[in-house]
Amino acid sequence: MLNQTVLALGKKRSTIREIFEYGNRRAAEVGRENIFDFSLGNPNVPAPDAVRRALLELVGQDPVAVHGYTSAQGAPACRKAIADNLNARFGTQYTGDQLYLTAGAAASISICFKALTASPADEFIVFAPYFPEYVVFIEQGAGAKCVLVPPQPADFQIDFAALEARLSANTKGVVINSPNNPSGAVYSEQTIDRLAALLTRKSEEYGHPIYLISDEPYREIVYDGREAPFIARSYPHTLVCYSYSKSLSLPGERIGYVLVPDVPGFDDLYAAVCGAGRVLGYVCAPSMFQQVVARCAGETADLSVYAENRKLLFEGLTGMGYACVKPEGAFYLFPQTLEPDDRAFCERAKKYDLLLVPGTDFGAPGHMRISYCVQTETIRRALPLFEKLAAEYR
Amino acid sequence: MLNQTVLALGKKRSTIREIFEYGNRRAAEVGRENIFDFSLGNPNVPAPDAVRRALLELVGQDPVAVHGYTSAQGAPACRKAIADNLNARFGTQYTGDQLYLTAGAAASISICFKALTASPADEFIVFAPYFPEYVVFIEQGAGAKCVLVPPQPADFQIDFAALEARLSANTKGVVINSPNNPSGAVYSEQTIDRLAALLTRKSEEYGHPIYLISDEPYREIVYDGREAPFIARSYPHTLVCYSYSKSLSLPGERIGYVLVPDVPGFDDLYAAVCGAGRVLGYVCAPSMFQQVVARCAGETADLSVYAENRKLLFEGLTGMGYACVKPEGAFYLFPQTLEPDDRAFCERAKKYDLLLVPGTDFGAPGHMRISYCVQTETIRRALPLFEKLAAEYR
Repeated sequence: MLNQTVLALGKKRSTIREIFEYGNRRAAEVGRENIFDFSLGNPNVPAPDAVRRALLELVGQDPVAVHGYTSAQGAPACRKAIADNLNARFGTQYTGDQLYLTAGAAASISICFKALTASPADEFIVFAPYFPEYVVFIEQGAGAKCVLVPPQPADFQIDFAALEARLSANTKGVVINSPNNPSGAVYSEQTIDRLAALLTRKSEEYGHPIYLISDEPYREIVYDGREAPFIARSYPHTLVCYSYSKSLSLPGERIGYVLVPDVPGFDDLYAAVCGAGRVLGYVCAPSMFQQVVARCAGETADLSVYAENRKLLFEGLTGMGYACVKPEGAFYLFPQTLEPDDRAFCERAKKYDLLLVPGTDFGAPGHMRISYCVQTETIRRALPLFEKLAAEYR
Repeated sequence: MLNQTVLALGKKRSTIREIFEYGNRRAAEVGRENIFDFSLGNPNVPAPDAVRRALLELVGQDPVAVHGYTSAQGAPACRKAIADNLNARFGTQYTGDQLYLTAGAAASISICFKALTASPADEFIVFAPYFPEYVVFIEQGAGAKCVLVPPQPADFQIDFAALEARLSANTKGVVINSPNNPSGAVYSEQTIDRLAALLTRKSEEYGHPIYLISDEPYREIVYDGREAPFIARSYPHTLVCYSYSKSLSLPGERIGYVLVPDVPGFDDLYAAVCGAGRVLGYVCAPSMFQQVVARCAGETADLSVYAENRKLLFEGLTGMGYACVKPEGAFYLFPQTLEPDDRAFCERAKKYDLLLVPGTDFGAPGHMRISYCVQTETIRRALPLFEKLAAEYR
């Protein structure tokens, strides 16, 4: 009687949700401070003060204008401010007319999949390890096929042989997420250039463009003085899906954008994005936060805590013998588990009240995701427990 | 290559949008103050001061908590506050666990259609005149069929013979919108009782519940000391879709809810709503405004301006000979046009810079929608122009 697909999705608790609730039960037993919850991706650094100042300024303005509908694409002045900021940072020449403001990155990518899917045979390629909701948005949301590429655990860059074997005339798009959740990998210039060359060649071969859907909410969270390459400069048919959730620590406010490339057929591509937003029930991105992010487009939260946490956790764990690719961005560590069965390992870690997410959930068995968007003190106190856990396997 | 359905939806400018842009062009020629734009449904009264106070209070709190993710259903404390407020006003016994907070009423109804649609043969019944996006959300969004019931222009209550003729074993739900956009009609207790009795009888006949999807963003905007009946009390299988867009004048903020009834199978129904929200790319309702509406659930903007506008416009137009059902709620007047071709009539009205929306757009030809969420002075100055327009037809 009900939609069985969405019913199943609504009933199935995600692993992360289950861990969260387990943590709450344990916290009631032994105290919140004795639970080491590394399962969540909720930024723990406050939004920058510029956000507070922007909100205060807007609260003092005409509420009819601040809280009123904007056009479906977003307020023109906000879109222009965001385009100007991108141009200043990346040497691009975008206009506000290429931006479509959204209720965050999940909305952005859902809208792109919907806009591009012309047939149930259409395929989107996703690289493991991946954000699990991609599969939902591609298959249940847009009605297309999700084609998975296995991980390349040595560095979590792209396994090009595996990718090329999966490209076909049905490939509508390739999804990338760099800096990556859950691996923390940042695609190198070399990876991006090679990807761009391959997609260009295959687009020509198939006679239609393969779109690159670049999901980049972690764009600003990179370490060691690096900067994540701005991918859209390297491949024209890139749809940039952005969210201010991480850079401005505003995950609950649901504010982001799709940046539509100025390629031949732009008008149709932009219209399809608008139409997809309309079909999915989005009316406009939240209006007050459109204006907040326009004012704060050049700001970030103080991300130095993440840098400190990363150093402490990476050095601590590798010193104990955990094997781990050093993350270059985002706020996740993705070490190998100390036994091949990552679920069993994460279950065992609960003995020490260490809450970790099995890599299987991200398409990369034998790994665990450790979110380090937590208090530094939490990491400091957790390290001896990771050591005890490791000792069990020696 | 692109999704042709969403492309067409993205390319087709709505009539209201076209009128809006025509108005902008004319304003550049003759001055904004000489354009009488009655086409938009954007509330023109400010949000109540309680909203400003709530925002100020929240701006002073921990930003990590205020702007963080909430659970997909919404923050438990906010859901409880909203349920408590409903219970206090309507004598109901809802709990927060029956509420699913959304990004506004468009999201709410999209989610309900998606949750209930188990097969492409499933039908949702919509009464003309109707909000045109219903058709998009039902057909393109959920993949079900939209079945239209013609208007009953004498009072814009329900034509029960026409409804009964359209009910079938495929009927999954019936959509109502009272107070109504565009007619301003408020369903009477008698209409609701009769509808509930009919749907109960037909549900038994077909052996499955017919859901009532009650889209009620105008619930608090009623006149002459009336109160709109709280429909969910009259028919158990009612999914209430609400938005704070109109009552709190927050249309751009995208905040509302689905209220899931405590009927047998509640757990599955609620899970299907959650799953539908997930598939459509909604992560959580905007977090700061979850807390704003929880604090302001008992408030409304000062709606007295609408009452004054309604009186002035209704008395003015009927005095000139326009035939019009007196609206009991919302902020629209829906008079008959003075010639059967409503598009031609609205085109002619442009001569006087009166911008009106043809009833055909709402499935009710021979009518025009006049939004009176405008400055009272605008109405005062427009009335002589409506008189000149009427004189052309004498």
